[in-house]
Amino acid sequence: MKNTLSAAVILIGNELLSGSIEDKNLAHIAKTLEIRGIRVRETRIIPDIESDIVDAVNTLRAKHDYVFTTGGIGPTHDDITSDSIAAAFGVPNIIVQDVFDAIGAYLDSKGIEFTRAAQRMAHAPQGAEMISTDNAIVPGYRIENVFVMAGVPRIMRIMLDAMISRLETGLSIQNTYVHANVGEGEIAAALESIQNQHPDVDIGSYPQDQDSTISDYRVIFVVKGTELSELELTCQQILKACHDGGYDAIKI
Amino acid sequence: MKNTLSAAVILIGNELLSGSIEDKNLAHIAKTLEIRGIRVRETRIIPDIESDIVDAVNTLRAKHDYVFTTGGIGPTHDDITSDSIAAAFGVPNIIVQDVFDAIGAYLDSKGIEFTRAAQRMAHAPQGAEMISTDNAIVPGYRIENVFVMAGVPRIMRIMLDAMISRLETGLSIQNTYVHANVGEGEIAAALESIQNQHPDVDIGSYPQDQDSTISDYRVIFVVKGTELSELELTCQQILKACHDGGYDAIKI
Repeated sequence: MKNTLSAAVILIGNELLSGSIEDKNLAHIAKTLEIRGIRVRETRIIPDIESDIVDAVNTLRAKHDYVFTTGGIGPTHDDITSDSIAAAFGVPNIIVQDVFDAIGAYLDSKGIEFTRAAQRMAHAPQGAEMISTDNAIVPGYRIENVFVMAGVPRIMRIMLDAMISRLETGLSIQNTYVHANVGEGEIAAALESIQNQHPDVDIGSYPQDQDSTISDYRVIFVVKGTELSELELTCQQILKACHDGGYDAIKI
Repeated sequence: MKNTLSAAVILIGNELLSGSIEDKNLAHIAKTLEIRGIRVRETRIIPDIESDIVDAVNTLRAKHDYVFTTGGIGPTHDDITSDSIAAAFGVPNIIVQDVFDAIGAYLDSKGIEFTRAAQRMAHAPQGAEMISTDNAIVPGYRIENVFVMAGVPRIMRIMLDAMISRLETGLSIQNTYVHANVGEGEIAAALESIQNQHPDVDIGSYPQDQDSTISDYRVIFVVKGTELSELELTCQQILKACHDGGYDAIKI
């Protein structure tokens, strides 16, 4: 897609891989970035294992403009993201004094002991820029083109909002949708022809289950690009192809 | 974890990366495999681009006992999974006559034209074993240790069920859960000590948002392993550590 930047997302946590907990962060990150012209090009879900994190971070930061990680920055034994990011960059994972003091003051105000475990949260790789917010005591951080965030969705969102100002932006990516009661096979040839007429637009075709909560129609066409007029034209062509074949279709 | 096999999952589809559609397959695949002793060790979400699919398949099939893919096996222009899997294995993507005939007969019975697009669904990489079911006209397939499935959740589940008999199994992985009203930092030292006593058990700690739909408690500990007696002992130790600190905690 023209004039867009690329990003990768790394979701860190055994629980996501085992299905114990379903990810609630990727869709929000992708949508937040797309409207700023940054497209998520790949995502990896990996366990809490240092070598896995190092491999993913070093592979993806070389391939993409930005990398965003979620998870593993809390105080428990399985929170090894900062240690691993530091290892990926070949720097030590050090105490950040401002954060250390802020956590200490917060826990003190609550009458909670500032344990060695809680002190883990005051660490970041040497050279990282902490990205503070008014709404979270422990900040996310950036090191080069890698942005490190919490896994808890509410906190991740606060951190991402604060990071936006550090990102270069491209042309905003827009989505338009056509819902249609047509079999994919019946419309595929027309759809391919329309796609070929609009190489800068990305047309996706997603059949829906009967019990889909997204649409009562059999298929959703997602039309994505940076030029609204071209998206509109593409949608009109898809609608016409459906209607010409006698199929019900609407633009959402 | 002792006596378990490893798997990777590849979720194919632009829509998953852009947040247009949230994945509903990974958790089901992971849970279905875990009870058979196969652990999902990594997951990649990648776009409908042949080189990305080839890279992911070839990297992951060399690293893991099994690879499972979802998505991209329908009739439209963005359904390039079979072409890409064939390219990954260096074989042609060929018509499978039985499947071709079955799709033809089905469409004929519905009075729908058997388009060139629909014929895409009758292809599979040369050497693939089609894994038929009574409930889906287009089967999933296996080529070596790679299992290829649809993206639509209802159909994916039918295909996965049919594939189970082709899989070797390990010791079943069990999950037990402790929910507790404790801050992670306050329990982290005790938790790490318990983890160190049980190297074959995997203890995960997942703080919950206030609006969590999973638990009213502040944190969930997921205790995972193949030996039920050891899981039970581990949970009892976590409960005791919480209760000794004056925190409310229950085993689910």
